[in-house]
Amino acid sequence: MPSSSSIDIGGMLYHERLTRSLSRLVQINRVIFSGTTKYQRVEIVESPDFGKMLLIDGKVQLSTFDEYIYHESLVHPSLFSHPRPEKVLIIGGGDGGALEEVLKHNVVKEVVLVDLDKEIIEISKKYLKEVHKDAFNDERVSIFIEDGRRFVERTNDKFDVVILDLTDPSGQSARLYTVEFYKLIKSRLNSNGIVTTHSESPYVYQREFVAIYKTLSEVFSIVRPYGAWIPSFGLYWMFIIASDHIDPRSISKDLIKKRFEERGVYTEYYSPELHEALFVLPKDILMALKRTDVPVSTDEKPIEIPV
Amino acid sequence: MPSSSSIDIGGMLYHERLTRSLSRLVQINRVIFSGTTKYQRVEIVESPDFGKMLLIDGKVQLSTFDEYIYHESLVHPSLFSHPRPEKVLIIGGGDGGALEEVLKHNVVKEVVLVDLDKEIIEISKKYLKEVHKDAFNDERVSIFIEDGRRFVERTNDKFDVVILDLTDPSGQSARLYTVEFYKLIKSRLNSNGIVTTHSESPYVYQREFVAIYKTLSEVFSIVRPYGAWIPSFGLYWMFIIASDHIDPRSISKDLIKKRFEERGVYTEYYSPELHEALFVLPKDILMALKRTDVPVSTDEKPIEIPV
Amino acid sequence: MPSSSSIDIGGMLYHERLTRSLSRLVQINRVIFSGTTKYQRVEIVESPDFGKMLLIDGKVQLSTFDEYIYHESLVHPSLFSHPRPEKVLIIGGGDGGALEEVLKHNVVKEVVLVDLDKEIIEISKKYLKEVHKDAFNDERVSIFIEDGRRFVERTNDKFDVVILDLTDPSGQSARLYTVEFYKLIKSRLNSNGIVTTHSESPYVYQREFVAIYKTLSEVFSIVRPYGAWIPSFGLYWMFIIASDHIDPRSISKDLIKKRFEERGVYTEYYSPELHEALFVLPKDILMALKRTDVPVSTDEKPIEIPV
Amino acid sequence: MPSSSSIDIGGMLYHERLTRSLSRLVQINRVIFSGTTKYQRVEIVESPDFGKMLLIDGKVQLSTFDEYIYHESLVHPSLFSHPRPEKVLIIGGGDGGALEEVLKHNVVKEVVLVDLDKEIIEISKKYLKEVHKDAFNDERVSIFIEDGRRFVERTNDKFDVVILDLTDPSGQSARLYTVEFYKLIKSRLNSNGIVTTHSESPYVYQREFVAIYKTLSEVFSIVRPYGAWIPSFGLYWMFIIASDHIDPRSISKDLIKKRFEERGVYTEYYSPELHEALFVLPKDILMALKRTDVPVSTDEKPIEIPV
Repeated sequence: MPSSSSIDIGGMLYHERLTRSLSRLVQINRVIFSGTTKYQRVEIVESPDFGKMLLIDGKVQLSTFDEYIYHESLVHPSLFSHPRPEKVLIIGGGDGGALEEVLKHNVVKEVVLVDLDKEIIEISKKYLKEVHKDAFNDERVSIFIEDGRRFVERTNDKFDVVILDLTDPSGQSARLYTVEFYKLIKSRLNSNGIVTTHSESPYVYQREFVAIYKTLSEVFSIVRPYGAWIPSFGLYWMFIIASDHIDPRSISKDLIKKRFEERGVYTEYYSPELHEALFVLPKDILMALKRTDVPVSTDEKPIEIPV
Repeated sequence: MPSSSSIDIGGMLYHERLTRSLSRLVQINRVIFSGTTKYQRVEIVESPDFGKMLLIDGKVQLSTFDEYIYHESLVHPSLFSHPRPEKVLIIGGGDGGALEEVLKHNVVKEVVLVDLDKEIIEISKKYLKEVHKDAFNDERVSIFIEDGRRFVERTNDKFDVVILDLTDPSGQSARLYTVEFYKLIKSRLNSNGIVTTHSESPYVYQREFVAIYKTLSEVFSIVRPYGAWIPSFGLYWMFIIASDHIDPRSISKDLIKKRFEERGVYTEYYSPELHEALFVLPKDILMALKRTDVPVSTDEKPIEIPV
Repeated sequence: MPSSSSIDIGGMLYHERLTRSLSRLVQINRVIFSGTTKYQRVEIVESPDFGKMLLIDGKVQLSTFDEYIYHESLVHPSLFSHPRPEKVLIIGGGDGGALEEVLKHNVVKEVVLVDLDKEIIEISKKYLKEVHKDAFNDERVSIFIEDGRRFVERTNDKFDVVILDLTDPSGQSARLYTVEFYKLIKSRLNSNGIVTTHSESPYVYQREFVAIYKTLSEVFSIVRPYGAWIPSFGLYWMFIIASDHIDPRSISKDLIKKRFEERGVYTEYYSPELHEALFVLPKDILMALKRTDVPVSTDEKPIEIPV
Repeated sequence: MPSSSSIDIGGMLYHERLTRSLSRLVQINRVIFSGTTKYQRVEIVESPDFGKMLLIDGKVQLSTFDEYIYHESLVHPSLFSHPRPEKVLIIGGGDGGALEEVLKHNVVKEVVLVDLDKEIIEISKKYLKEVHKDAFNDERVSIFIEDGRRFVERTNDKFDVVILDLTDPSGQSARLYTVEFYKLIKSRLNSNGIVTTHSESPYVYQREFVAIYKTLSEVFSIVRPYGAWIPSFGLYWMFIIASDHIDPRSISKDLIKKRFEERGVYTEYYSPELHEALFVLPKDILMALKRTDVPVSTDEKPIEIPV
């Protein structure tokens, strides 16, 4: 992958703090978009290694090089675990990448996407077609420009799968990682309902990863973490599926394979075989899940990313 | 993990180029050792996130924070796949970390460690006890200060497991990743013999990872890649096990569990459950293994890391 | 000057190599323009410390914070040394900053600006008004889009002052720093004619600075270096005035003061007092000017910046 | 100066924040010393561009490449302005660089050096001989390990010149930049006495530079700022001479030349000619000295460097 067009890291760079004492530099060939929406600073840049990158408030949200890994990991383990996901709610995900994966399941009849920031959707529509593939135009899709928590509080709808595709817990978005919020989500799930969220990196942000796990465990009886390496994030990344009825770990690869065929889904990363392996974690991460020094996240004391 | 001792990346840093257009900065609290051996530049530094780090020619080799992930991943999948690994050869690994993992198996009767650089061993003995835990003093261990390839050419010994714990293929070390070298290794294996090597990162150095896979496939009938996230490397890292008789993918978790008990091994990362999941790869990496544009590495045209 | 809007260097950065082992990082708040002209990559970015910065091929050309220091230093020492600069040629300087300074002298009747890159002028007109203050519209100004050397070869005009406001000597622009080029310039000077150029940094690029000095000394009998600290360059910067008839070092501050009044010039950095002090150099730089290991720059072997 | 030994900024680096949004990276070839004294973190490193660098708490104090510029600029303008500097006090300066310059004046009979940190002196004696040239052993020198302010409070001695060679105003050292401290210094000066201090960078730390100027102006009737470019600092640096009787600006170059000869001083940077030019400042810095928004530094509200 190393490009031959430059012999050193120079010119425009994207610098991201991963921890207080660790950071990375990504060379930028071209700035495609740079602006500030009502809520956040947004850049779309082009890098030799990762193609287009979407940055929100200076943190990478996705790259065209590996968004399929992130979005397939976020969406398919829960959708394939569900016997018939007809109605799906996505909170966040204004780039349309999760939406595009959800719509691949032909059993899906309705997807509601709720994002606070209208402009993120507009910018994505214009500059990130390779991510969402015009999923916004699918007639099964409804879009609400609204705070995700508010939407969940006011809606009477119920969903089979809820996908939380949020920015890291910090400031306002921390309200979307608390026990109170997960209870709201649970109240909007059909029986057999499943919720899935990304959940930070297991070593570098272990406290936050474990807090999300423990907080979901307060509300749901089945909570299953799994991970994926997202090169453009510079970190291994965790996801969690939670439910009261469906255990994704006990869905066999043969059943997944059958659902793949029935639903006409094509993937580049996720597979029936991978599904089975996904929920086996190494010993150190299993130990981390038992940490007693990590609190449950609440509206009163929400966990936040430290950087 | 973020340390509260500093609010910004400052002072002494370790900067590592991951690709031509991607790099990372690691803050350094203390330089424990800095010098040049006969063969390479060596530093041992202390960082807030990763503890002590061993740098060779400016590239991180291990950190005390996560060397157990690297060394357990390198050593145990092959040793546990082998029914009775009595005689083990480690080429490279002068830090003693792989050695310490090998010696955990009480069936091991003899370990030969061959490293070109005597001083690396001396420096590790002095500064990296938490890595090797004085494994060098175990009476089962013999150490040869010698080029690994030369040793394999001249020795008459045969081994049950050969572990290649080498610096990345570049310059001299590229000779330890070629089809000719792997044939030499094969000639020094007992029946049931297994060889294992680390094999670069699957996206960022995909060409090199696939080349190692294809090169081993020229020599061995069973070749199994698997991966692990090593935080201090900044990259997901691949390993490959090769053999003509033993397929690690078909060793059940129950058999592994039995061997754990028989051999008295304690681990922090690797487990019988993980062993089974380890060899399931996502679709994109399976596709990459079929790339036809990647050549087999030969003495005449060895593959090398591009940075 | 440190801004309170951020607690660390993060997000978008501008990274500039100053030498092979020295570089700097400048935080960027906003990318105002990013594109590639026929000849070069151009960015206009906004930084907390330096305001808008114009980058060409990843190297800073000016900032709105301190362009007055650069442009006043480039223009006024020669224009004020000349008794009556009526006709001025600027080669390069497509940003209009030198032009604006020249036009402050009401004795100037005609300024010819020659820049290879039409788009640089267009971009500057649009985004850098605080630099050129619409100087392009002054009726005394003619603009030629043309290689500077070609223009000098073909023109029959003669000038009182020639100002070389060029990118660093590298590739094509190295042809504008050679003894052959300076001879062409000399042939286009009126009697009393003066040429001035910036000439790199005196320690970090000492070889290049001295080469320009020695090359001008081959062609002109009076060659006077002087310097200024340009914060946004990260380096102290040298300039050189050359002439066969006028020695800027012997123009008294009283004469400069008189010319200031006659010509109605207002400055923010340069002054009659400073003019006198400007040409006094420290001992180490005077020594450097005598270096015998630095060649004269010729078309056959032009000096180039090493980065 | 660019070294040919490396093609990119890699391996060990020294990163220094110059402002909140500006920093620089200096490649390090070798770490010569790394440790923590009772008071501060100290490193001596070797860089391709600047030779050995002394870092205190992660900020560069000097380099062997250009310490002569800093130390000659700090010492000689005041010592040469004084008709007969027999007794000199240096506060700070534990590296011995200022000491070495002072001792070049054969009229000097006694130098008292007061530094809080005994270990800095020991480390400098061992590793920085090219800076101090064993000046510590000169029989005219007395060393006191003591807080500089305390020393001034308790001593009954009087001095002809006091040289403040301090770390930047921050925390404890801010007490050595206040009006109360300067009054103490004044009380320890002989008639004709002079004090000199470095005083930060004129644009990037303009507020602090001006504060030091205004604070000295509260205590002394003659206050003269001047500057020098110190490549290894990455910034142009200011100094200030203050006195009630001697105006360095009115000492002619001929008188300086005479004193050079009488006192047997040899320099590499400073010269009689430079002395005259030194005190001429550009218009923008003269304007800055009149800023009314910058307070005098007092014990109650000391100014501090913002980073």
